[in-house]
Amino acid sequence: MTEAVAIRPADTPSASAPEDSAALIADMGRRARAAAVRLAGTPTADKAKALVAAAKAIRARAGAILAANAEDVARARANGLTAALIDRLTLDPARLEGVAAGLEAVAALPDPVGQTIDEARRPNGLLLQRVRVPLGVIGIIYESRPNVTADAGALSLMSGNACILRGGSEATASNHAIHAALLDGLRAAGLPEDAIQLVPTTDRAAVGAMLAAQGLIDIIVPRGGKSLVARVQDEARVPVLAHLDGIVHLYIDRAADAAKAVPLAVNAKMRRTGVCGATETLLLDRAYGAPGAIVAALIEAGCEVRGDAEARGLDPRILPAADSDWDCEYLDSIVSVAMVDGVEGAMAHIARHSSHHTDAIVTEDQAVADRFLAQVDSAIVMHNASTQFADGGEFGLGAEIGISTGRLHARGPVALEGLTTYKWLVRGSGQLRP
Amino acid sequence: MTEAVAIRPADTPSASAPEDSAALIADMGRRARAAAVRLAGTPTADKAKALVAAAKAIRARAGAILAANAEDVARARANGLTAALIDRLTLDPARLEGVAAGLEAVAALPDPVGQTIDEARRPNGLLLQRVRVPLGVIGIIYESRPNVTADAGALSLMSGNACILRGGSEATASNHAIHAALLDGLRAAGLPEDAIQLVPTTDRAAVGAMLAAQGLIDIIVPRGGKSLVARVQDEARVPVLAHLDGIVHLYIDRAADAAKAVPLAVNAKMRRTGVCGATETLLLDRAYGAPGAIVAALIEAGCEVRGDAEARGLDPRILPAADSDWDCEYLDSIVSVAMVDGVEGAMAHIARHSSHHTDAIVTEDQAVADRFLAQVDSAIVMHNASTQFADGGEFGLGAEIGISTGRLHARGPVALEGLTTYKWLVRGSGQLRP
Repeated sequence: MTEAVAIRPADTPSASAPEDSAALIADMGRRARAAAVRLAGTPTADKAKALVAAAKAIRARAGAILAANAEDVARARANGLTAALIDRLTLDPARLEGVAAGLEAVAALPDPVGQTIDEARRPNGLLLQRVRVPLGVIGIIYESRPNVTADAGALSLMSGNACILRGGSEATASNHAIHAALLDGLRAAGLPEDAIQLVPTTDRAAVGAMLAAQGLIDIIVPRGGKSLVARVQDEARVPVLAHLDGIVHLYIDRAADAAKAVPLAVNAKMRRTGVCGATETLLLDRAYGAPGAIVAALIEAGCEVRGDAEARGLDPRILPAADSDWDCEYLDSIVSVAMVDGVEGAMAHIARHSSHHTDAIVTEDQAVADRFLAQVDSAIVMHNASTQFADGGEFGLGAEIGISTGRLHARGPVALEGLTTYKWLVRGSGQLRP
Repeated sequence: MTEAVAIRPADTPSASAPEDSAALIADMGRRARAAAVRLAGTPTADKAKALVAAAKAIRARAGAILAANAEDVARARANGLTAALIDRLTLDPARLEGVAAGLEAVAALPDPVGQTIDEARRPNGLLLQRVRVPLGVIGIIYESRPNVTADAGALSLMSGNACILRGGSEATASNHAIHAALLDGLRAAGLPEDAIQLVPTTDRAAVGAMLAAQGLIDIIVPRGGKSLVARVQDEARVPVLAHLDGIVHLYIDRAADAAKAVPLAVNAKMRRTGVCGATETLLLDRAYGAPGAIVAALIEAGCEVRGDAEARGLDPRILPAADSDWDCEYLDSIVSVAMVDGVEGAMAHIARHSSHHTDAIVTEDQAVADRFLAQVDSAIVMHNASTQFADGGEFGLGAEIGISTGRLHARGPVALEGLTTYKWLVRGSGQLRP
């Protein structure tokens, strides 16, 4: 996910009994399963047609969607939500056009379903093939951004999955208005409306029912702040595809080219500070020649720099770092700086403090770079590139439903392929097992 | 897994406080993590060397291992374990040679670690690669078969993972004797002994501690009977790679070749009835010409046949099937038979009753076969082949740690590749994200 939300607005407190939510989710799940069976065999062209028609419907319904969004925003203001949350919630004509264009972009992606991963002929003549198939039913639990309704619905549909979307209470009107456009798209392509369902209540118990829906929902994708993701990981009985923290390191090696190191450090930290690929800790090799210029450039770019005792010697403007700074995802214009002994020192610091999301090295020494790439155990490991590239779109996946910091199933940016599994096809001519 | 165990012997009741087990597993987990870091960078040749040396040690220690096994078997007899369990527990020189040869076979498998899954150059010049890396630490919880100690240890090591093995109490002496040989192998190759650890207690609380060891154990693989797997799936907070039931269907289509259908049905059901790929339900197309010959061949092979009302008309020896028969994994010389309306009827029955492990069609009609292969949503779908081929060895994987009926991460037979994940390497020349 490209944007992390630090504060989670309260859901509507549970107004109904948990059994009601369980029954609601069970009914939605059964309908989703039936739709998933149809989607698994739906040709690429029909899925794409639905998304292109949904994009058209977004544009046609722009007035209604923006009016619904204005309602949500007004309510959010009245409820005293933070400016950052209101910004995430707010749609305008340009952002809404982005949502429509996003649907068209997903429609143009290669369809992973039906791809043959590998095949082999056995000595007994059996032909074995592994073929990609959809996961089935995906549950997406998200917060204030109404564009997730369209993005997540589109990625699920294009990968042949049905989905159950549960957006934040603060975006209810916007989500319903966007969902109506997605249903227009499904109808235009003759696909079941149950393929993309929006949970009709923001009752908190519905989230619990989704997390417990083993057999009905195949995977849960939480998109939002740390407290949401932590709750989901803690409670879920359904497998979860999630990332918690992006404690991202940029290591400047002794053999770094200063002409690259300064702009890389500034871009990696400051391009956008709220994204999960933003650098949070800068590691400086004690043998690097020009560390002061990097620190100065960051400070001049508006960044607060917190350093260990040794780093503070580089610039009087560096504030002291506390122990907790090394494990902190600031998502803000703050960076921690530690001095380390070469690549081994950097890797030791990373092994202790990284959240295994993205870590990078800047060096002209290829052997050192290769060691770092091989040994750092993170979903994304970079050499001479800004950590802000940690993004499904930048990786050429066309979109992303999230960045997984888990090790199972999919790791790093997840798009269509990560929403599939495979089955083994065995073609014989009457072979018996001896 | 190739052998399902229907009855689970009792573990030692918890003799110590749960905190003791948690501390034990936490300590083993930390040591395993440290070993895993080393294994991730260990060359293929060193891993293979350890396994070949372990095979040699198994042979050298054969006397001690068989003596330890005799102890376990005597205790099992005294405790009144079933003949089937005692058979699974028992080693003899031939079986032990099979264990040693299995280690050598795994040593000869291609190493998935370091393989590049795919790579792409982005328009901005960034080179992206997805490279396979080990999962980390694997926990294996198993029952009476002592050979699992060697098999699971070997597959974990060859895929670059550390493992924590927790065998059944009834096989304690055998497991320790085999584990000693694995440690000989690790030492011979200069690899850390913590790479393959055996839980030193059969206290039941140790299983609970493993299932709760988030962050210490990356994946749990249960190998054993339904009650063990169900407990693991129910309690685990760590991801689980498991299969529950093998409710396997063989569908005989109207266009089946009778000369293939009879031997396929007999082999699929009767070759070995205790394996998870054994057919449990036979579906007969009403329009198939010679159903009686199939039923007769099964009965003559010693199989009890239970049919629906219509099927019973085929042969007076068919017993009536109860509703529960259609959801039953017999693991015995029993088969249920239902009459269906062609491939659509068969697929409807399979959708209701299959455990999504393995299902097969017998037909000479390629279009019907293709429909079945495309639409049946099981880990393995076969055409004109015995369902008993559902096995990692038969699939050319060299071995298997289990057959996954889950949809996430790995599906069907799982060997070395299924014990890996990947990371994204990004190689740049100073690229900044705009």
